[in-house]
Amino acid sequence: MSKKVAIREVALRDGLQIEKPIPLSAKLELLVAIANTGVREVEATAFVSPTKVPSMADAAELAAELHNFPDIEFSALVASPNGAKRAVVAGLRSIEYVVAADDTFSLKNVGRTSTEATSQISEIVDIAHASDVRVEVIVATAWDSPFEGPTPSQRVLDIAAAARDQGVDRFSIADTIGTATPGRVSSLISQLLPIIGDLPLGAHFHNTRGCGLASAYAAVIAGVTRLDASVGGLGGCPFAPGATGNIATEDLVYLLTDSGYHVDVDLRAAISAAQVAKEAVDHDLPSALLRAGDRIRS
Amino acid sequence: MSKKVAIREVALRDGLQIEKPIPLSAKLELLVAIANTGVREVEATAFVSPTKVPSMADAAELAAELHNFPDIEFSALVASPNGAKRAVVAGLRSIEYVVAADDTFSLKNVGRTSTEATSQISEIVDIAHASDVRVEVIVATAWDSPFEGPTPSQRVLDIAAAARDQGVDRFSIADTIGTATPGRVSSLISQLLPIIGDLPLGAHFHNTRGCGLASAYAAVIAGVTRLDASVGGLGGCPFAPGATGNIATEDLVYLLTDSGYHVDVDLRAAISAAQVAKEAVDHDLPSALLRAGDRIRS
Repeated sequence: MSKKVAIREVALRDGLQIEKPIPLSAKLELLVAIANTGVREVEATAFVSPTKVPSMADAAELAAELHNFPDIEFSALVASPNGAKRAVVAGLRSIEYVVAADDTFSLKNVGRTSTEATSQISEIVDIAHASDVRVEVIVATAWDSPFEGPTPSQRVLDIAAAARDQGVDRFSIADTIGTATPGRVSSLISQLLPIIGDLPLGAHFHNTRGCGLASAYAAVIAGVTRLDASVGGLGGCPFAPGATGNIATEDLVYLLTDSGYHVDVDLRAAISAAQVAKEAVDHDLPSALLRAGDRIRS
Repeated sequence: MSKKVAIREVALRDGLQIEKPIPLSAKLELLVAIANTGVREVEATAFVSPTKVPSMADAAELAAELHNFPDIEFSALVASPNGAKRAVVAGLRSIEYVVAADDTFSLKNVGRTSTEATSQISEIVDIAHASDVRVEVIVATAWDSPFEGPTPSQRVLDIAAAARDQGVDRFSIADTIGTATPGRVSSLISQLLPIIGDLPLGAHFHNTRGCGLASAYAAVIAGVTRLDASVGGLGGCPFAPGATGNIATEDLVYLLTDSGYHVDVDLRAAISAAQVAKEAVDHDLPSALLRAGDRIRS
């Protein structure tokens, strides 16, 4: 009996966020390729400042197309109650509210301290739940901040307790700058589990220092059941220096299925979607399987 | 109390094997950079056919320089009793004898079946031990063959039992084509441990499908105490289609030390050595830290 890991495809949001804006038609073409992988959860866009993140300025227009993919649960990232309202109005059924664990990143990212951002969870939950929309709190810079160095675990645990107490539906931790390693991943998760109890726990890794897949596997072993990944390894974060490359969906699928886990995503379809992503952004992507292919035999 | 992992630097052999031959002076320059990392074990060269592996044709000349680095234990790869004799004559104190687990790879690589290669272990041990030279048996294609697909675990266990019975000093398993994943790594190692008993167990991974570091960490968790790595991620195997890129020493050092393990290799010196390797071969290398650097703060 193989264990199951839910993969959320984040190429359309975290993948494209740092890129020069691409046309809505190109995003929809990528979405079709992503849907063909069989993935059940897709981060579609972000309802954030179009000035700060021009590549997400078409959030409402993209949201209007999502009804064409009834088998997928779409989520959108928000950074404020106002963003949550926009996401709900646009018809999203799931929103991700990001709270950075360190003040410097939080202030640069959303103009509020980490504590101030945490205190807004209840308002976000009220907005979402009033329309039967699911809320996930994602802790950014959960292991390290690009500005403050290592994040004290206690700060993440405090946000987790607040999220749990405010009635969120899911909780995730993000290695925003790709510096986490499996030892610290296991450690943080083992501290989190008693706090979040039955809340589904997810994790989000970047491969900036080559450790993304190792950290993802350590997270699964430690108890995470949901992982973010991006076809081709597309992605980064415009506000986090050096944060390039989500873990590649196809590399993660290869690792997990070959290690005995069940995922909804088809490997060859993910490699095809990575090729579509590569053409959409018109530059090479860091995915290993996009180069090596899924073949073992010569 | 942190656990220790021994890293063997393989850039000079596995790293350069697939490259166009570089001058001995460039190899020595790379060796100086490698010695500066503090690493205690270095795979220096291979005593194999200079026709098949022209980049190792200077094995004896390189060996004559190794006395300048008295703090390092140097090893050389051999594929036959004749190679073992050449290595001993050249003054190497440690030899690695490679036995491929599948016949097709073994026949293409050394012109003998896997069973025939296994039966030569005792002759190699006799040659080496007569001169107080250490012998390590390395099983190539331990998880997958590029020609035959998945390797039956029993074949690896049989070679391990033969190696133990013939009195080898160390035993290692190699993911020659970079297809292993952490689940299968853990599984094979847990089967091997009861067979090899007190023999030091090493592992060798390529990052071809992005899983090299994840597999290396899984190997350490499962009981491996020695890992091969190559500065810059230099390397591949000329006889294994698609086998590119050893795990990068600097990426491994980052992962292990950040996860709480002790290694002899200094991270910044390893990044510097990777830069020397990159200049020596005059092309980009796959190392993540060579691009990202070791900084966390901006």
